[in-house]
Amino acid sequence: MADHSHPARPAVLGQNQYGKAENRVVKITRDGATHHVKDLNVSVSLSGDMEEVHYSGSNAHVLPTDTTKNTVYAFAKEYGIESAEQFGIHLARHFVTSQEPIRRARIRIEEYAWQRIGTSGEGAHSFVREGRETRLAQITYDGGTWEVVSGLKDLVVMNSTDSEFWGYVKDKYTTLPEAHDRILATEVSGRWRFNWTEDAREMPDWEKSYEQIRKHLLQAFADTYSLSLQQTLYEMGARIIEHRDEIDEVRFSLPNKHHFLVDLEPFGLKNDNEVYLAADRPYGLIEATVLRDGCEARIPVDLTNL
Amino acid sequence: MADHSHPARPAVLGQNQYGKAENRVVKITRDGATHHVKDLNVSVSLSGDMEEVHYSGSNAHVLPTDTTKNTVYAFAKEYGIESAEQFGIHLARHFVTSQEPIRRARIRIEEYAWQRIGTSGEGAHSFVREGRETRLAQITYDGGTWEVVSGLKDLVVMNSTDSEFWGYVKDKYTTLPEAHDRILATEVSGRWRFNWTEDAREMPDWEKSYEQIRKHLLQAFADTYSLSLQQTLYEMGARIIEHRDEIDEVRFSLPNKHHFLVDLEPFGLKNDNEVYLAADRPYGLIEATVLRDGCEARIPVDLTNL
Amino acid sequence: MADHSHPARPAVLGQNQYGKAENRVVKITRDGATHHVKDLNVSVSLSGDMEEVHYSGSNAHVLPTDTTKNTVYAFAKEYGIESAEQFGIHLARHFVTSQEPIRRARIRIEEYAWQRIGTSGEGAHSFVREGRETRLAQITYDGGTWEVVSGLKDLVVMNSTDSEFWGYVKDKYTTLPEAHDRILATEVSGRWRFNWTEDAREMPDWEKSYEQIRKHLLQAFADTYSLSLQQTLYEMGARIIEHRDEIDEVRFSLPNKHHFLVDLEPFGLKNDNEVYLAADRPYGLIEATVLRDGCEARIPVDLTNL
Amino acid sequence: MADHSHPARPAVLGQNQYGKAENRVVKITRDGATHHVKDLNVSVSLSGDMEEVHYSGSNAHVLPTDTTKNTVYAFAKEYGIESAEQFGIHLARHFVTSQEPIRRARIRIEEYAWQRIGTSGEGAHSFVREGRETRLAQITYDGGTWEVVSGLKDLVVMNSTDSEFWGYVKDKYTTLPEAHDRILATEVSGRWRFNWTEDAREMPDWEKSYEQIRKHLLQAFADTYSLSLQQTLYEMGARIIEHRDEIDEVRFSLPNKHHFLVDLEPFGLKNDNEVYLAADRPYGLIEATVLRDGCEARIPVDLTNL
Repeated sequence: MADHSHPARPAVLGQNQYGKAENRVVKITRDGATHHVKDLNVSVSLSGDMEEVHYSGSNAHVLPTDTTKNTVYAFAKEYGIESAEQFGIHLARHFVTSQEPIRRARIRIEEYAWQRIGTSGEGAHSFVREGRETRLAQITYDGGTWEVVSGLKDLVVMNSTDSEFWGYVKDKYTTLPEAHDRILATEVSGRWRFNWTEDAREMPDWEKSYEQIRKHLLQAFADTYSLSLQQTLYEMGARIIEHRDEIDEVRFSLPNKHHFLVDLEPFGLKNDNEVYLAADRPYGLIEATVLRDGCEARIPVDLTNL
Repeated sequence: MADHSHPARPAVLGQNQYGKAENRVVKITRDGATHHVKDLNVSVSLSGDMEEVHYSGSNAHVLPTDTTKNTVYAFAKEYGIESAEQFGIHLARHFVTSQEPIRRARIRIEEYAWQRIGTSGEGAHSFVREGRETRLAQITYDGGTWEVVSGLKDLVVMNSTDSEFWGYVKDKYTTLPEAHDRILATEVSGRWRFNWTEDAREMPDWEKSYEQIRKHLLQAFADTYSLSLQQTLYEMGARIIEHRDEIDEVRFSLPNKHHFLVDLEPFGLKNDNEVYLAADRPYGLIEATVLRDGCEARIPVDLTNL
Repeated sequence: MADHSHPARPAVLGQNQYGKAENRVVKITRDGATHHVKDLNVSVSLSGDMEEVHYSGSNAHVLPTDTTKNTVYAFAKEYGIESAEQFGIHLARHFVTSQEPIRRARIRIEEYAWQRIGTSGEGAHSFVREGRETRLAQITYDGGTWEVVSGLKDLVVMNSTDSEFWGYVKDKYTTLPEAHDRILATEVSGRWRFNWTEDAREMPDWEKSYEQIRKHLLQAFADTYSLSLQQTLYEMGARIIEHRDEIDEVRFSLPNKHHFLVDLEPFGLKNDNEVYLAADRPYGLIEATVLRDGCEARIPVDLTNL
Repeated sequence: MADHSHPARPAVLGQNQYGKAENRVVKITRDGATHHVKDLNVSVSLSGDMEEVHYSGSNAHVLPTDTTKNTVYAFAKEYGIESAEQFGIHLARHFVTSQEPIRRARIRIEEYAWQRIGTSGEGAHSFVREGRETRLAQITYDGGTWEVVSGLKDLVVMNSTDSEFWGYVKDKYTTLPEAHDRILATEVSGRWRFNWTEDAREMPDWEKSYEQIRKHLLQAFADTYSLSLQQTLYEMGARIIEHRDEIDEVRFSLPNKHHFLVDLEPFGLKNDNEVYLAADRPYGLIEATVLRDGCEARIPVDLTNL
């Protein structure tokens, strides 16, 4: 990445990327009086031969971010939105194959789910937004190899029992009493990487994969008698790896949403695991990757929101 | 409200209130291996004979906000949480009747709903947080009369057709083209006031009332062929008034979440009500009260978040 | 407000208002190479003869919210933005006097301040946004009388000593120890009402008034040896009333941003008012109005964000 | 990272870390009647020999996150808070050197600045929170080598002229007109890596370094006549590299906060670069690393908030 055309430059350009972020696109598909909705937030990020625009301000290699926005909306019409992943694949392929200076495209998508509102009439075009989680997809393409990482965030779960925490290290700063029956609650942020990487191979069923992975991680959370949030995290990841052949890697970032048992003794009351204070900050933060044995880790250690 | 003990004071105290806000209380009720959750955010606000604490800093009439917090947690144990409204009634009655200087108590509650995660085992103590809306309750008591206003916020709804907007006033600043088929979407913030005001009368079934009102407002939103968001708002309120005898007043604040049809003609594409840009700001904001005929309006014009 | 044209309607329309909210307008004024910035978020809310649009969906009296948006931007050019208050007065007058069905206009404005970045060149057109507080203005006009309420929010202040809290009521739920030296911190949300109400009277100097009131409330916060946050609140309001003749009423909403002294004794350390935990929720919430003696209160009890 | 003690495990543990996040610590230092404030948000993240807690739930190697929280508060007393970086170095060294299973500690700190409120008295213990930006520091230690990355976020800047954008690639989805005088505004998120890595070398002056880098990046933003935001970004990074020997790498994430010139022609008005609409989403997002020639990039491509 050294800059031969500008000798004696003490500061050189490293990794760089650009594009239009957070394009909010809503696609309505009409099947007679029955409508279907896809509601996405699409962020485009392009990399390639972009030294000049940084060094001299020449935009000769720069496809405007405004154009990347237009392309998102045009593709919603041209290709439809079968799934977030499929839509991202169309976009990434387009940018890399249509513009010579662009060598890599990364498309990030948030998807918001909608439920139907049942009506007395025959039409089906009324919806209420599900708020339970935000679905995520990230598609990266370099002209040869695909990387698809899907996931979710904002999924809040709780076990009101079957969680303990004891047997830990005690140093001079340790005051925490051991717990043999506590609430375990977290807001799941998870990402999973598909092993589909080549056009020559058949694509996964993206919609079914999401639905199944979501089901497995919820089941693993609920089924695990937990001795630590780390153990629960591992079980959630392992469950996905074991049941979904299309996934090689899972990463979770799990804040331990502390629920403190309130001391009611000063008021002459016994709190038998009934009344809790739900705390905001600070919170434990447990993060880990779970890999299919023999596979390499590629999901970054720090998950980002978009 | 004039202050006779401090003559010649140019600045006098007006309405005032105080208390602990946003006490996050989670109550687990164990019915064998089946657990039930109530998850509330409770804010206490007390008024009364509080001139001295403002004028001189004397706290002789002040029950500390810390004590109001403790009371919330103690009452969750002592009375349980049958509903947000019932819980607020216990708290408001306590503050007004146990402390002579306190003449009025207002309890505001946000409630977060949880769904069960089905598991293979026999236990039922795993939950995923519903994110669809936040339920609200406000209970005010002055020692004689009750006022209960319930509601919700964050409920996002959309009709993908059956909405028009035309025939409006055009002045020299008007450029908007008329629309004969548009998306109508809003994030409902609503409040409804119960006509239950006296202990002597039987209380409404708070849980059933909420569930039914939520159903009616969603149905009215979905069923109304809309010529303006104002019309839809009125229909939502009127439906509640007509079907729920316990309610005398409804107020809605409805942001018009604009979905702009994207112009795809520059790309040689026809956008037949398919591809929309979901905009953030600015947004139309439609607010109104709907009253049972003959009843008085008491819900403030500006709805607040808590 | 009864609806004579629709007999037998069980649900009638009450107070209502509509308009475009959160129009973000930035006005650059060029004085040679020296530029000046005004950065506002303007919300328009109109009321009047609007029954039909609610009852039948007829928009014959409705100036579109899109038009109110256009008017904001056009007026930024036509009148400039001398101050938020003056700009709101132009807008409110226009809506009420130009459209017969509109009987009242309320303009709410947030203003964001910018500081200059000093440069070596002669130009002065680089700015960094001040983040310290958001300035607020609300202008209401009914065709005859003006009401101007200005204010601020997001102003975080702290006294690291000269605050006590003791001598309060103790009931069975009280566990709080008395404090004789504590941190007092709050995030000020304040509103002040001007006694200018008629075109015939000279307007206040809106910019100078804001600057002076901000100075007085900060001074009063810093100067008051506090026995309770209520006392500090009153002193802040009284200082404004005493020093600023143009103001008749002040209301504050002051969250008590608790800073808890951390117990370091388990680690063999003495915490001599040095190390504090800054807590989020719950928080005490102290709200009150301070009035010029003999004046009436008009600012609503619950302050809203916009 | 393969797990030899659990043969035939299809899902293996990868990178993992844990700790208490967002410990809000406020340190008051009293110099007679003059007080000094440090206000930090400290997040601890530990890694090491942690396989068992994930695989079996054994906490034998786990120092509780609650203990890491206690340590933050105890160290604020024991060492004071000279700077965020110095405080993080004390913490990281402690965790790695005192607990055998812990091989790496990463401390992330947000710092909030406070300004004095001048008072008439002799004391100096009243403060107003600066809101202009959040200072960041990340300290990582593995028992041998230090990595310190400092930075800031939330710094909003604007040039009201001296910005152009033209000469870019035009494809079939390009509709953007070229601009020869536009507003350039962004919210700077930046990180810079120090070349100090060993205890044997003298540490930088962390406070002075921050102040100087902040000054240089603001100056570079203001001084650059911009042909693209990429060029401005590079100039900001290069200015730091050129003037601050202690820094080898800088990364910026710069959202292009679009200010659209409003079309006022429909209203018979000419908008001569005066009235702009400040847009929210979508936004261009420009991200790049600037390196001292010959140095390696280590700051992750995606900056995270904490």
